Amino acid sequence: MEINKAIEKLISRIGREKVFTEEHYLSLYSYDSTNIFFRPDAVIFPYSENDVTEIAKIATEFRIPVVARGSGTSRSGGPVPVKGGFVVSFTKMNRIKEIDRINMIAVAEPGVITQELNSEAAKYGLYYPPDPSSVKVSTIGGNISHNAGGIHAVKYGVTKNYLLGMRVVTIDGRVLRLGGKVVKSVVGYDLMRLIAGSEGTLAIITEATVRLIPRPLSRALFVIPFRDEYGWLNLLLEIYKSGVLPCSLEFMDRECILVNKRITGFYVLKESSIHSLLFVELDGTAESVLAESEKVKDILAEHNITDVIFSNKSDEIENIWDIRRDVSPSLNALGEYRIADDVSVPLGSLRNAVSELRRFAEENSFRIAIFGHAGDSNLHVNFMFGTREDMEKNFDKVMRQVTEIVLRYGGSISGEHGIGFLKKDFSESELDRDAVRIMKEIKNIMDPYNLLNPGKIFKTV
Amino acid sequence: MEINKAIEKLISRIGREKVFTEEHYLSLYSYDSTNIFFRPDAVIFPYSENDVTEIAKIATEFRIPVVARGSGTSRSGGPVPVKGGFVVSFTKMNRIKEIDRINMIAVAEPGVITQELNSEAAKYGLYYPPDPSSVKVSTIGGNISHNAGGIHAVKYGVTKNYLLGMRVVTIDGRVLRLGGKVVKSVVGYDLMRLIAGSEGTLAIITEATVRLIPRPLSRALFVIPFRDEYGWLNLLLEIYKSGVLPCSLEFMDRECILVNKRITGFYVLKESSIHSLLFVELDGTAESVLAESEKVKDILAEHNITDVIFSNKSDEIENIWDIRRDVSPSLNALGEYRIADDVSVPLGSLRNAVSELRRFAEENSFRIAIFGHAGDSNLHVNFMFGTREDMEKNFDKVMRQVTEIVLRYGGSISGEHGIGFLKKDFSESELDRDAVRIMKEIKNIMDPYNLLNPGKIFKTV
Repeated sequence: MEINKAIEKLISRIGREKVFTEEHYLSLYSYDSTNIFFRPDAVIFPYSENDVTEIAKIATEFRIPVVARGSGTSRSGGPVPVKGGFVVSFTKMNRIKEIDRINMIAVAEPGVITQELNSEAAKYGLYYPPDPSSVKVSTIGGNISHNAGGIHAVKYGVTKNYLLGMRVVTIDGRVLRLGGKVVKSVVGYDLMRLIAGSEGTLAIITEATVRLIPRPLSRALFVIPFRDEYGWLNLLLEIYKSGVLPCSLEFMDRECILVNKRITGFYVLKESSIHSLLFVELDGTAESVLAESEKVKDILAEHNITDVIFSNKSDEIENIWDIRRDVSPSLNALGEYRIADDVSVPLGSLRNAVSELRRFAEENSFRIAIFGHAGDSNLHVNFMFGTREDMEKNFDKVMRQVTEIVLRYGGSISGEHGIGFLKKDFSESELDRDAVRIMKEIKNIMDPYNLLNPGKIFKTV
Repeated sequence: MEINKAIEKLISRIGREKVFTEEHYLSLYSYDSTNIFFRPDAVIFPYSENDVTEIAKIATEFRIPVVARGSGTSRSGGPVPVKGGFVVSFTKMNRIKEIDRINMIAVAEPGVITQELNSEAAKYGLYYPPDPSSVKVSTIGGNISHNAGGIHAVKYGVTKNYLLGMRVVTIDGRVLRLGGKVVKSVVGYDLMRLIAGSEGTLAIITEATVRLIPRPLSRALFVIPFRDEYGWLNLLLEIYKSGVLPCSLEFMDRECILVNKRITGFYVLKESSIHSLLFVELDGTAESVLAESEKVKDILAEHNITDVIFSNKSDEIENIWDIRRDVSPSLNALGEYRIADDVSVPLGSLRNAVSELRRFAEENSFRIAIFGHAGDSNLHVNFMFGTREDMEKNFDKVMRQVTEIVLRYGGSISGEHGIGFLKKDFSESELDRDAVRIMKEIKNIMDPYNLLNPGKIFKTV
């Protein structure tokens, strides 16, 4: 078998201690957070870029699929090896190589946990804004591959906005250095931002240089309850009108509130009347946060909104955000199997689109729970099922309907989770046929044998 | 001649009134702001996307170069037709198609003047942040093609950060719709941000959907004089440390101050002692701007910096920015011919890099003037010459030396002006050879006959 020869050769090149074929390894690296399972033939833990070039060369020689993997928190089947082959885990390439205080940049290997990068930056008074809810687990490499967003994207933007430079390994084992250490550069085509967000299908990231910004010294958080489902939408527009640009604008619906014990704890007396929550976070200097908080309080008073939780203490705020981050895991309690969808809909159409999604769920007796990044109009729409069979039986129906509604309102079928394996049959509904053709031609240039994370993003390559 | 047949066919397809071959048209569209001249064979003014597809099809049929052009403010020879052919001016495609207040987006044809888009957005309380100094003249299409920055990029980012959707015409006359109307979308490869910034070499932009943000209601500007050349650098770092994120951090050196009569007017009594200026602008709510202004004033007091100009009146601030925008045109007064270079250097190396640039200028008796986007460490380095011959004679020497210094300090040879024709011989020094090979393969996919703005970006295609 070619795969056995490939594994033998790989062991001889990079060392036996980095290559695993034991059953429990293959199981452990066969899935992400989507309940999709495909077993790899080997799990490889490179220690260096040089190891990665060896992996790529051998993969090309023996035509073995290569799937780069961070922490496997993907919600789209991104790192699942649907064609088998090598899963390349970056667990061992997890060094922060440099935090440069003056230039405000960090250089990190792809396996660095995003929160750890941010904690390290904090020691220098610096801040790395992109923070998907998985931030304490997921990696820089995975975040870049998916162009991850997060709760602070509304003010600070997504991962690509902070990407200054990358080293990547191509499938034929060459190293490309892209970008550099400066905030602005317009030299040549933007290969870096093409590879970032390509879900490991164009090249393998081995190093990233990211922009840091001065850490805001002060912050304040409002948790605002509404007695109706769409009250938060109106308030959000009022806040925008006031000239305040919050660093976070998150919302959750009643189902999310009820399922999250820690949230219901806050609102224990009044939960029966609360139908949605808006989280509004402000950051900046102590003085500007104080001034903007007063402004938000004025808006709340004008709209007679009471029972608002307010905090300007950093540790309290972090606790509340942890509760927000728990929504997604908590939802699993509603039903063991969940279709956790991620869509964007223009703000002005959000109410109609959400109503249609709810009507669809109701007509089919599906439990639905919606939360997400209100300020970016990026919603996480969850459908819960009691059994795996139930979920699988309804998967296509749900995906087709969500896609139809979202695209009809001019939205996107993925705001930040990516397409991966889960949505590969639906991505081409959003894209022009000629654009898809060009994308596939680019794929063919960079990965002529279709070895880099095959079976993802597009229905067929 | 093929070109005459092509022009005849084009006239029959889109109408004589849109196609010009008169001598004065060919002259008028033979240059941009770099003093590079190449005559086109025809200047075409499409009225619609359909006209553009006709132009593309005929260009492909007869193998005629096509150069899309906005207002021609490029500083890199971007829209100069170095291989002749069709210059396609978007002057007539200058409609703002939609300002959507709720979704905070604008849809514009490529010929819309950027400032006009912003003025229109202002009527709805919205704001389009990217503002290159040419903002009152240059177009959305040109800005996107160069990924233009501007004085507010330090807080708000560059053009690509605001690009949500595009319609483009490929050289074979197909229309691609890329992106859409939502802030976040990660579906397929990011063809949109590959084509944006490609200086018209991959496709022709026919429509752009851009993100608007709530217009900051209040602003304040400090103009801060320093008695030494690098004082501004230190103060900039102090401001960052304080937690204040200014929306503008611009600097200029003594040469720029002296040449700009309107600036010296401010400082008429003290100009002999002023060696550099830092412009610091704050924006937000009235309250937060007030709070942050006090913070900046404290920092100034701590450092005993006096004679600061301060304004919190919008029209005064605009006047001061007009003066800043006048620096580049004013520099022409120093010498009739100018090499207006645009580079990025990491902030921590800026002082050393600038010292080396000055030493190089001094050794060669070149007049040098430096200003730019201090917060982004993006500098406009200008070398002035008395005659065209002098400039041309020294061009390669200057470019080679600037490239060497900038790259040695980990910088980029273009922060925001692009490569165009002017720097095409130098771009490959910054890029990996394998990356260039892939870029050229992508070019070949999208433009197999090398008709889209040929002779740009790379030394050879």
